[in-house]
Amino acid sequence: MNGAETLLQTLLNNDVDVCFANPGTSEMQFVAALDRHPAMRGVLCLFEGVATGAADGYARMTGKPATTLLHLGPGLANGLANLHNARRARTPVVNIVGDHAHTHKELDSPLESDIDAAARIVSSWVRRPATPADVGPDTAAAVAAALCADVPGDPDPSRTGTSGAVSTLIVPADLSWSPGTAPALRRTQRALQTVSHHDIDITAALVTGPEPAALLIDGTGLSESGLKAAARIQKATGTLSFCPTWPARLRRGAGVPHIQPLGYRAEAVGRQLSGIKHLILVGAREPVASFAYPGRSGILTPPETTVHRLAPDSGFDVADALNRLADAVTPDLFAPLPVPDAPPRIVNEALRTKNWAQVIGALLPQEAIVVDESITEGMETLAPATANSPAHDVLGLVGLAIGQGLPVAVGAAIACPERPVVCLQADGSALYTISALWTQAREALNVTTVILNNRSYAILRAELDRVGAGQIGPAATALLDLGQPDIDFTTVATGLGVPATRARSTAELAELFSTALATPGPHLIEAILQPT
Amino acid sequence: MNGAETLLQTLLNNDVDVCFANPGTSEMQFVAALDRHPAMRGVLCLFEGVATGAADGYARMTGKPATTLLHLGPGLANGLANLHNARRARTPVVNIVGDHAHTHKELDSPLESDIDAAARIVSSWVRRPATPADVGPDTAAAVAAALCADVPGDPDPSRTGTSGAVSTLIVPADLSWSPGTAPALRRTQRALQTVSHHDIDITAALVTGPEPAALLIDGTGLSESGLKAAARIQKATGTLSFCPTWPARLRRGAGVPHIQPLGYRAEAVGRQLSGIKHLILVGAREPVASFAYPGRSGILTPPETTVHRLAPDSGFDVADALNRLADAVTPDLFAPLPVPDAPPRIVNEALRTKNWAQVIGALLPQEAIVVDESITEGMETLAPATANSPAHDVLGLVGLAIGQGLPVAVGAAIACPERPVVCLQADGSALYTISALWTQAREALNVTTVILNNRSYAILRAELDRVGAGQIGPAATALLDLGQPDIDFTTVATGLGVPATRARSTAELAELFSTALATPGPHLIEAILQPT
Repeated sequence: MNGAETLLQTLLNNDVDVCFANPGTSEMQFVAALDRHPAMRGVLCLFEGVATGAADGYARMTGKPATTLLHLGPGLANGLANLHNARRARTPVVNIVGDHAHTHKELDSPLESDIDAAARIVSSWVRRPATPADVGPDTAAAVAAALCADVPGDPDPSRTGTSGAVSTLIVPADLSWSPGTAPALRRTQRALQTVSHHDIDITAALVTGPEPAALLIDGTGLSESGLKAAARIQKATGTLSFCPTWPARLRRGAGVPHIQPLGYRAEAVGRQLSGIKHLILVGAREPVASFAYPGRSGILTPPETTVHRLAPDSGFDVADALNRLADAVTPDLFAPLPVPDAPPRIVNEALRTKNWAQVIGALLPQEAIVVDESITEGMETLAPATANSPAHDVLGLVGLAIGQGLPVAVGAAIACPERPVVCLQADGSALYTISALWTQAREALNVTTVILNNRSYAILRAELDRVGAGQIGPAATALLDLGQPDIDFTTVATGLGVPATRARSTAELAELFSTALATPGPHLIEAILQPT
Repeated sequence: MNGAETLLQTLLNNDVDVCFANPGTSEMQFVAALDRHPAMRGVLCLFEGVATGAADGYARMTGKPATTLLHLGPGLANGLANLHNARRARTPVVNIVGDHAHTHKELDSPLESDIDAAARIVSSWVRRPATPADVGPDTAAAVAAALCADVPGDPDPSRTGTSGAVSTLIVPADLSWSPGTAPALRRTQRALQTVSHHDIDITAALVTGPEPAALLIDGTGLSESGLKAAARIQKATGTLSFCPTWPARLRRGAGVPHIQPLGYRAEAVGRQLSGIKHLILVGAREPVASFAYPGRSGILTPPETTVHRLAPDSGFDVADALNRLADAVTPDLFAPLPVPDAPPRIVNEALRTKNWAQVIGALLPQEAIVVDESITEGMETLAPATANSPAHDVLGLVGLAIGQGLPVAVGAAIACPERPVVCLQADGSALYTISALWTQAREALNVTTVILNNRSYAILRAELDRVGAGQIGPAATALLDLGQPDIDFTTVATGLGVPATRARSTAELAELFSTALATPGPHLIEAILQPT
């Protein structure tokens, strides 16, 4: 057994059994060891941003980390943007990054770079084993750090209260090929923290008091259990509930009380929170604008609203807190669920912002996993259109680094092979990590991708006005325009091994979406959207 | 004039007039300002790694930096791998990275990350202007830092002796939209350093002495002037010349003395340097292995060889040093050029490692720019096959972070619109930055890309053996195999707007390559290579 095998077996001992890999020479020992440890599933990704995004999607659905296998500093660098998203979503991810052998570092060979500095940008925990005997314990510690579990003898206060984190283990090549030591056993996983009775009582007084209150819920509060508790609280007290615009994971659809996402723009949030005197954060952060704009505050809570914290972040058991709060304010065990509207009759017309999501909502299968990187095209239309679809989970773009959707879909499909994955993907963002389609094809994943092709960075067109950039001319317009030439996503997907079709009308989208869902393996539908 | 315009006009005052951009909200003021400063050419890239690679290619051909325009930390992160390559190639690149407004930083909004830490990984100079009055001077300083020019009042010893570097200016959004101050004027560019007479004399004694000596040349020594001087030295003294395996820029072809690249693998270098008693580095670094292997030294210079330094790095005027050395050892002003062999008759057969480069070499047009990311397929075949082609420049993968080729071709074509660009691109690496094809199409660049499709990470298959990974099974094999499904690059390129064809034989490649070169705009040829 060499060091690479010690590492692999320790991962397996710690219930980490999927590796999204884009290896190089310094990681060849791990690659070779896969055949001797067949319980570890290696999934080849053709770009590191696919591997890191897939690990994020996998962990959001399983609650346990996958590992990535990345090649030196540049390989890690290519994966950083989706690790940023994982960090923001508090997803557990374990990165294994190969490094040169100790003796080789001083030669400053071509790929030498500061791996540790790159890792620290996104990781709550970074370590490089110093000796072969460290490989096992350090690997177990990496898993524990990703799970924010207690690591005996390794207290790290920065991990307190997070539900998951990115950890990075940097492994010099000589430790991989040196004789290994015994793999380490499983570390204890720390449970979510529990909100105190005192805090429940204080919040109960607020929501039953005379002044309008609202809950802003995140974390496990967006599970079916949490949302049902929120609905009980609303029925008993009139307290509204909101969630972040794009939460890491949200339960939605028939049988699940609908929760209103906060709008992406400050004006929308202002309308939503208008008149609310008490905003109670339940596992959520205080809402802030994604960007600053001249002369506007970035704090979205209205000035007359007082902010309270029931659970300071998603590291608390938010669903439990909501259920206890509901028990405190009402004896009713159930709130009436919204009566599903009859699905809107889909009129056959050209696809636009206002109608594409209705098609998806009408045809979404039971227990779908919806990966939402629809951005401009979905920010106001997707939630209402899918509120009464069969119950499903939605995975959102918490960290706003685009290029997450296709990789997260890979990871979610590997996590839940029995569930259909629907990836709603903006066009501009899709090209960042387009090779994820190839991995979907190789692994025969049941992912239906809908590219929302509006042929522009539409969100930036809106932003130009909002930052006060004034009148723009052809040079600026060209930098926001994805036409000239038009990207033919149908053809690109075909070249990467994914069957693809194009829809221009609601009827075409409905037919192609149904067919794709009924056919095993990945499919891509390019929805050509007309300007609104 | 706002701060963004101060920045743009300062760049123009400093002769920086091309911007490879993938902007977001925090960079909208720059985008809007482009129409008021039409001398700045904005080039939209659909992924930041394309923007940074294009800036590298542009500067290698012009000697002056382009600027990138990147969106916050994740945008910079996506560009890091090709900035690593630029750093290793000592290419001047100026990154402009937008950041949130000062007041917005403390809100820790979704895209917040440590931009400065990411920048420092690849940059010799990182600064964020503190006030509007700093924008002009700091922008001029960023250009000077990239050019390793003297910056009055800003001595930075770390820049000494480099010919170009990556500099990063991080611009908070509020400085872009605030009223600007006067743009700064041009800074002085520092000339390359000159080698001393004493060092020339010492080297002359070595190369005329009794023991076999060889030159390892890089930097401006790989220009026509430098290579002709090296040929004079060889004729007079028998001193051989070598260059790095993949130098940043190399002149090659008819009328240019051929220089032997060092092999990629240690064994090859050992053969090349066998019997050499004195290895003289002329602008080059001491040769080291790209990776460590169990039980082998990473230092490639044979133990019996003494290393000498004539010019310690490529920040010296290496061509001048070689010419003065040649003058010192021989009165001859010219060395006989190699008599071009008759071009090999191309037999029509299936494409393989051994014959594809001969087709390229036979048909390469005058003054081509050859972007070489052919890796395994070209490492032993390209140099001999093109030694007698019409004179051309070769741009290599100095930093070994794959995914450089297609973007560097974008930048080279924008730098030299009158010259044909030929991009020789390995298949595995191509997908990293495939959207560069779209930019080639939009800008109607004269780039002919040849994808060398061997359907594997071929170099890693060879490396598995070399790291002593032993027998491998199907799990490991799958992680190095780019088939299942085969990637159809012809189709992918078509979808991105680049006309594409496929060649399976030498005759097909010859015909398609000639046609592509004769037709304006970008083309892609997918060369399907049979196993050797």
